[in-house]
This record gives sequence, structure tokens and C-alpha cells, in this order.
Amino acid sequence: MTDDFARLTAVEKTSDGHYAADIADGWDIGGVPNGGYVLAIAGRAMAESVRRPPLTVTAHYLAPTHPGACSVTVEPVRVGNRLAVLTGSLQQDGRESFRVLGTFGESSGADAQLVDGRPPELPPYADCLAAPSPSDRARDPSREAFLAGSGSWPAIYDRLAIRWRPGDEGFMRGQPTGRAEVAGWFAFSDGAPVDPIGLLLVADAFAPPVFNIGIGPGWVPTLELTVHVRAVPVPGPLRCVFRSHYVQGGLLSEDGEIWDQAGVLVAQSRQLALTPRS
Amino acid sequence: MTDDFARLTAVEKTSDGHYAADIADGWDIGGVPNGGYVLAIAGRAMAESVRRPPLTVTAHYLAPTHPGACSVTVEPVRVGNRLAVLTGSLQQDGRESFRVLGTFGESSGADAQLVDGRPPELPPYADCLAAPSPSDRARDPSREAFLAGSGSWPAIYDRLAIRWRPGDEGFMRGQPTGRAEVAGWFAFSDGAPVDPIGLLLVADAFAPPVFNIGIGPGWVPTLELTVHVRAVPVPGPLRCVFRSHYVQGGLLSEDGEIWDQAGVLVAQSRQLALTPRS
Repeated sequence: MTDDFARLTAVEKTSDGHYAADIADGWDIGGVPNGGYVLAIAGRAMAESVRRPPLTVTAHYLAPTHPGACSVTVEPVRVGNRLAVLTGSLQQDGRESFRVLGTFGESSGADAQLVDGRPPELPPYADCLAAPSPSDRARDPSREAFLAGSGSWPAIYDRLAIRWRPGDEGFMRGQPTGRAEVAGWFAFSDGAPVDPIGLLLVADAFAPPVFNIGIGPGWVPTLELTVHVRAVPVPGPLRCVFRSHYVQGGLLSEDGEIWDQAGVLVAQSRQLALTPRS
Repeated sequence: MTDDFARLTAVEKTSDGHYAADIADGWDIGGVPNGGYVLAIAGRAMAESVRRPPLTVTAHYLAPTHPGACSVTVEPVRVGNRLAVLTGSLQQDGRESFRVLGTFGESSGADAQLVDGRPPELPPYADCLAAPSPSDRARDPSREAFLAGSGSWPAIYDRLAIRWRPGDEGFMRGQPTGRAEVAGWFAFSDGAPVDPIGLLLVADAFAPPVFNIGIGPGWVPTLELTVHVRAVPVPGPLRCVFRSHYVQGGLLSEDGEIWDQAGVLVAQSRQLALTPRS
């Protein structure tokens, strides 16, 4: 494990069920480390404890994290031959940041009996749009503040080699598409392949689709995020699409699909979040 | 609370965080009490412990239950002013049957900012199909065994006043529709309104949609079920639709939407289950 993501989500076992880790700088959105990134840290501790990858993981978020030391506690619920059910808890400064319940194990490969859906249609990676680079942002400071209303550029977009479907980044320029959807390619900046732990990050790495219907930009606190890992991706950028279908009662749902270069659905995600004030 | 469902999911507090309950007869599919029914028992204990309804609940299933005494242990993760995050665990015969992680609280009403979807189109309740009655089954014993391959009629369909969209019950007659979808009306036999606890049952009360593409019928063990409660239903039968989009690697996902008489989305569900052998 020498790639950036493996290093930046590494956990060190301190005793049975206890892991030390570090939340790195540079994964922030609006000053708060991305919920998918910190979930990947807890997911890695849980996976290492049973030497099995995540199959379905649900996190309920309790309090924002910040860069720096954290610890993860893993407790077995039931460890069987094929599947292991575990809880995980990430703590920082003596406070629990989120709780995870997950089933770990391997699916039996990608043999598909039903695929009623398809990857999002995207222009080639090279023709999709990178987030504005630091020099772009220096030229046009208004592009710094698009996301969080906090005045800080989401550092996560410098860590990742995400490419947006042209138009879907419109909300960054004050031109939302009018459709609660964002799509694009996900890749790590160092080109490392995305493993099942990485998929936990991918599931929360794009901006909320509701930004494209004029809700926000602003902080969108996730209450709950569930990721189903459906296959191990082949190497190469992943096709991703995130959509919100229902925004009501102060809450929004967001559904994600992540497909690999072989055209296989590798993960599905759904989250429930508080709707930011428009 | 005098209606059937409230009575049959009642919990009695025995000490802080500990509840006694009874899994009733008559909620079985293939001899195993329905996963939504037993989730409703745990959900009720969790809800009572904080006097708040479920907002988003995830269960990971560990072992089948059976009719008879059970207990529920509830532990607070974080109880805030508006939202409470809790774990729940249902035990029977000294063994844990499933673990729950949930956030409880009220959404701020049904004011919708985005509704990108609509209730399934269904004939009126009276024109949809009840499951075969006991006398139907006595006349045609082949209809007894359709679901579980275990020779036992799913008793749950005698408890509930579910009505199937004509055709979607085709798999019961050996005539699957060829589409991994089932839709219909949900109601309790006594006409009691469905509350947020009841929605946990509704989310798992229909037969798996994959039965309509020739997978199964057979036992479909749910690994994980997540229900988002999006609004409190107005009285009256609920419009429900369940679809499977992805069956691969020995696993299937199933997505549900539940709409009330006012045309409001009241719950969304997703589960990951093991695919039965065809």
C-alpha cells in the first residue's frame, strides 16, 4: 500500500478492536473533511479487523471531524464464514464523529443476471472538466467560494482528479443546469486504482446534485450514507452519477451509481441529508 | 394503541434500554417471520426510548427469528434536541437476530422542493388483486406453495389487506411478468392507518420483484435493509412499488417507494439480499 489514498486512510491497530488514524489535510469541503473520506478510514479499520472488504456499509454522522489524529473502535456483531457484520465508531477529541454498521465479505464476482440501468453517458475523460486549478482561482477569486458559503475552496478537488460532465459544474459559475444531477469521472490524482474502500469515498466525493437546481451551494449535512459495493472496479477512471429525486420536509435524498471501465456497476449509494437553506 | 399492528409490535420496557416483546404468529414467509415485521418491533422500542419516530433506519440481519418471546436492547449513540441516533438489537433464545442503526426525529413536514418521481399507476384498490384466500387455496392446493419452496403459504398475506397490481402476482400462477417489479396497495386488515413504524413493515411486505423474472420463488435472505421515512402517511391504503435493477455477484438490490393517498412520498427503501438459486 504505497498509493496516496491507502496512505491517507491508513489505520494502525493499537489493541484488539482499536485503531489509530490520522485525518489528513486537503480533504475538506467548507473546512470539514469529506464524509466519504473519513468513512473510508473507519471502513478500512473494519475491513482490516476481519480481512474482508466492505459489502454494505451505513454511516450515521454525529459531529464534524477536523484534520488530525482520530481513533476507530471496531466491534464484531457476528463474524461468519462468508460474511462479517461489524460496528465501527470514529472518535476525535473524545467525541464520536460517526457510527457505522456494515457487512463485510466478497460478492461472488460480477456475473450479472439483471442489469436494468447503464453507466452515465460522459464525454471522454480528457473532454470533461477539471475543477478550476489554483491558478484559475487566482485569476478569478469568485470561483473560490462556490461551495460552502464559507469562502474556502473545497480542498478535496485538488486531491482528486475528478472530471465533471460539461455543464454539471455550472453551479460553480452561477449557472445551475436546472436538473438535480451531477455526473463525471472519478480518479485519484496519482492514478491509483479504486478499491472497495475507495468506493466509500467516491460515494460522497461529488458536489450535491441539488446545487444544480438552485438549492445551496451551502453546507449539506449528511445524516446517513449507505454504500453497497457491488463489484471490485477494474483500473481506470470511474463513471459516476448522483441524482436527487426527493427534497421535502427539510431533507433530501441523493442516489449514486458508480460504474467501472468494463461497464460494471461497482457501487450504489444513497444518502439522507439536511437541505441547506436556499 | 388498540389496532392490530400496534398490539402485535408492542414492546414493554423492562429496564433502561431493555424491552420485552413477542413475535406473533401469522407474519411468516416460508416459516420465517417477515423482516419488516420484526424490524418494526425493534423500531418501536427505539422510537419509544426517545419518544421520536424513525427517520432513517438500517438493519443488518444475522439469523432468522421465530414466533415467540424476544427482547430488544436499545443504546443511545447521540441524543440531540432534534435528532437522536440509536442502535437497536433484537435477541431471541440468547442469540442476536439483527442489529439496527437509526436516526429518529421528525422531518419538518411535507413541503416539497423537488419531487422527481410519481406514485405507481394502479387500478383502484377494489380492482387490484388480493392474495388467494384460504378457500381459494383449499380449491387449488398448488397455490399454497408459491413463495418459499417450503410448502407453506406465506401467512403474512392473511394479516395484511395487500392488493396486487393485476399481473404482478403472475409469479404465483407460474406466469412471471418478465419485469423485476411488483406494485400494489398496502393496508392493514383492520384498516388502521399506517404510521412511521408501520412503514418499516411496508418496506419489506411485498414479494421480491425478482420472482417476476424467474429468479425464485425461494427464500431471499436480506443482508441489509434501509428505510427513509419521508412523511407521515394520511389515512388510507398506500401505493407501493418495488423494483430490482441489479442482480449480480450473487446479490440483488431492491428499491421501494411508498406513497400515500395525498400523493406524498412517505418512504423510500433499499435492501441488499442474497439471490436465491433459480
